[in-house]
Amino acid sequence: MSSNASDGLNRRLVLGALAALPTLPALFGATMAEAQATAADPLPSWNDRPAKQGILEFIRATTADPSSATFVPLEERVATFDQDGTLWVEHPMYTQVVYCLDRVPVVVKEKPALAKVEPFKTVLTGDFEKIAKLSLHDLEEILAATLAGMDVDAFFDEAKAWIDSAKHPRWNRLYTELTYQPMQEVLIYFRANGYKTYIVTGGGQDFVRVYSDRVYGIPREQVIGTAGGFKYGYDKDGKPFLTKEPKLLLNDNFAGKPEGIHLEIGRRPHAAFGNSTSDQQMLEYAKGGDGLRLSMIVLHDDAKREYAYGPAQGLPDTKVGTFTEALYDEAKKGGWYVISMKDDWKRIFAFE
Amino acid sequence: MSSNASDGLNRRLVLGALAALPTLPALFGATMAEAQATAADPLPSWNDRPAKQGILEFIRATTADPSSATFVPLEERVATFDQDGTLWVEHPMYTQVVYCLDRVPVVVKEKPALAKVEPFKTVLTGDFEKIAKLSLHDLEEILAATLAGMDVDAFFDEAKAWIDSAKHPRWNRLYTELTYQPMQEVLIYFRANGYKTYIVTGGGQDFVRVYSDRVYGIPREQVIGTAGGFKYGYDKDGKPFLTKEPKLLLNDNFAGKPEGIHLEIGRRPHAAFGNSTSDQQMLEYAKGGDGLRLSMIVLHDDAKREYAYGPAQGLPDTKVGTFTEALYDEAKKGGWYVISMKDDWKRIFAFE
Repeated sequence: MSSNASDGLNRRLVLGALAALPTLPALFGATMAEAQATAADPLPSWNDRPAKQGILEFIRATTADPSSATFVPLEERVATFDQDGTLWVEHPMYTQVVYCLDRVPVVVKEKPALAKVEPFKTVLTGDFEKIAKLSLHDLEEILAATLAGMDVDAFFDEAKAWIDSAKHPRWNRLYTELTYQPMQEVLIYFRANGYKTYIVTGGGQDFVRVYSDRVYGIPREQVIGTAGGFKYGYDKDGKPFLTKEPKLLLNDNFAGKPEGIHLEIGRRPHAAFGNSTSDQQMLEYAKGGDGLRLSMIVLHDDAKREYAYGPAQGLPDTKVGTFTEALYDEAKKGGWYVISMKDDWKRIFAFE
Repeated sequence: MSSNASDGLNRRLVLGALAALPTLPALFGATMAEAQATAADPLPSWNDRPAKQGILEFIRATTADPSSATFVPLEERVATFDQDGTLWVEHPMYTQVVYCLDRVPVVVKEKPALAKVEPFKTVLTGDFEKIAKLSLHDLEEILAATLAGMDVDAFFDEAKAWIDSAKHPRWNRLYTELTYQPMQEVLIYFRANGYKTYIVTGGGQDFVRVYSDRVYGIPREQVIGTAGGFKYGYDKDGKPFLTKEPKLLLNDNFAGKPEGIHLEIGRRPHAAFGNSTSDQQMLEYAKGGDGLRLSMIVLHDDAKREYAYGPAQGLPDTKVGTFTEALYDEAKKGGWYVISMKDDWKRIFAFE
């Protein structure tokens, strides 16, 4: 056989084989993006509504075709996620605040004078209703008092021991079990498509780093959060170590979120997820970049399976994770997706 | 054949085949670490002396055998590198200072009153000898004045245009060509063995991020440096953007280096490389952790091929990248390796 004849035969064989194959999407009864990601539905806990379609379409448009105007190069694929109320339960009280309240008796033992001073006096009553009414300023005072001066490694070990055993009163389950299964699927789906996933939290950076890897598959260095200063010093054997300082270095809320993102990443995220007014600037910032961007905001409208609070859309008002009607209007105007917990999420927790 | 007889035959065949194979190091005439990394010498620009052997042994001991006491799990493999004087030339003046001096005429055009005020007056004379004598405080004043209020994206574009064209007066080559080839090999060797490589620089974080990926293979988010604050705002079309603020958020020098590492990584590095007193705390911090750690410090003792300065070891004194005799003593006492540019590096630059 001549070389040309052989080439012709090979081409025909290959084309014939290709023609006989059904297309991948047809094979799996799924969209192209789904077929590409896991050859099945990558978001099984989501109902088939606009939010789910928005995620699938965003991943397809930014990763499938390098010649497309909406394609995002690998090194620029950054997605940021608020934690409290976006990745896990934040009601009736932020998990880290519960941790700090649990530490108050230890702190008061070291500094007995605090027992007679507010807000410590209230905390020591153990009256949950009164404690829940403490202001943000009171809570910040508690946070500063309970954490300042601690060796960062000692803090890590202590916080780890706490998070490994502390349980949420409503479900009687570890706080780390109360992550939202639909959002866990989003994290995995983004990473499977080359996105680096970051937590950008108003909570303490060092606190969330204790469990981020195990709970969300997000390494410590991809957690940005509220951070105090650190002080470098030496122990009695001359070994260097860092202690926590009471001064605030980064308040990772509101405008502090894009500032923290620029400080620790240096890139504007292509996708951002949040749930409250303190996420507004991060969601605007992500959406305001060039090319295709995705901003999504979770609305807690499911009192039965989780909690219902706004005050947007006539939901009960709250100080923890406030989602105002003005923010709802901005979401609609800015082309963000509002995720309705009730309608968009088929199930909320992995243990359901 | 019975099953047992078959097993016996297979075992003999396997053991016989293994016995016939030369060991990997013997095959390549190299140490085990070298054979493991690239099956050749991963550090060809290093002379075969203790510093090179120290690097090879560190990588072998922390990555080769998961059952070893010195093994470091993948997620904890962090190595930090100072930039100026450690990865590239810092004499006669830090590259970023040259950039800022180049910007002074632009700033003075915007604020003409500055032309009559020091240190701007001196800079505008163009007298290099006088400019070189400006104090650190003067230089900081210039840095603040030339960068404050800039849109971070505009800064990125402008700094990129500058670094893409500015040349070092001695070699008449781009500053980005003046990286040390032996250290480039170390970066690649560490990454090939699962280490995340970070730059931890006293220079501006946003400045180094402009070229870190292209020049060192280090992505922007793995550059920690001196950082000012940022201000979130909206342009005339309502699009959000960040501008640089004159306030100092992180002074990434001396104790600021371990503080910056904890802030942006949250792990104590297993290996650290520096060259001056401003790296002392980072090198102590790395070396002070549990398990096997590596701290190395570059001594510029090669006036012929690069520069010679200390004042350690009787070398000329300098304000740029000072390496004191006290630091030299600490290196020896603390078990750090001192890298002699003259003796340890076979060649300095890739273009040689």
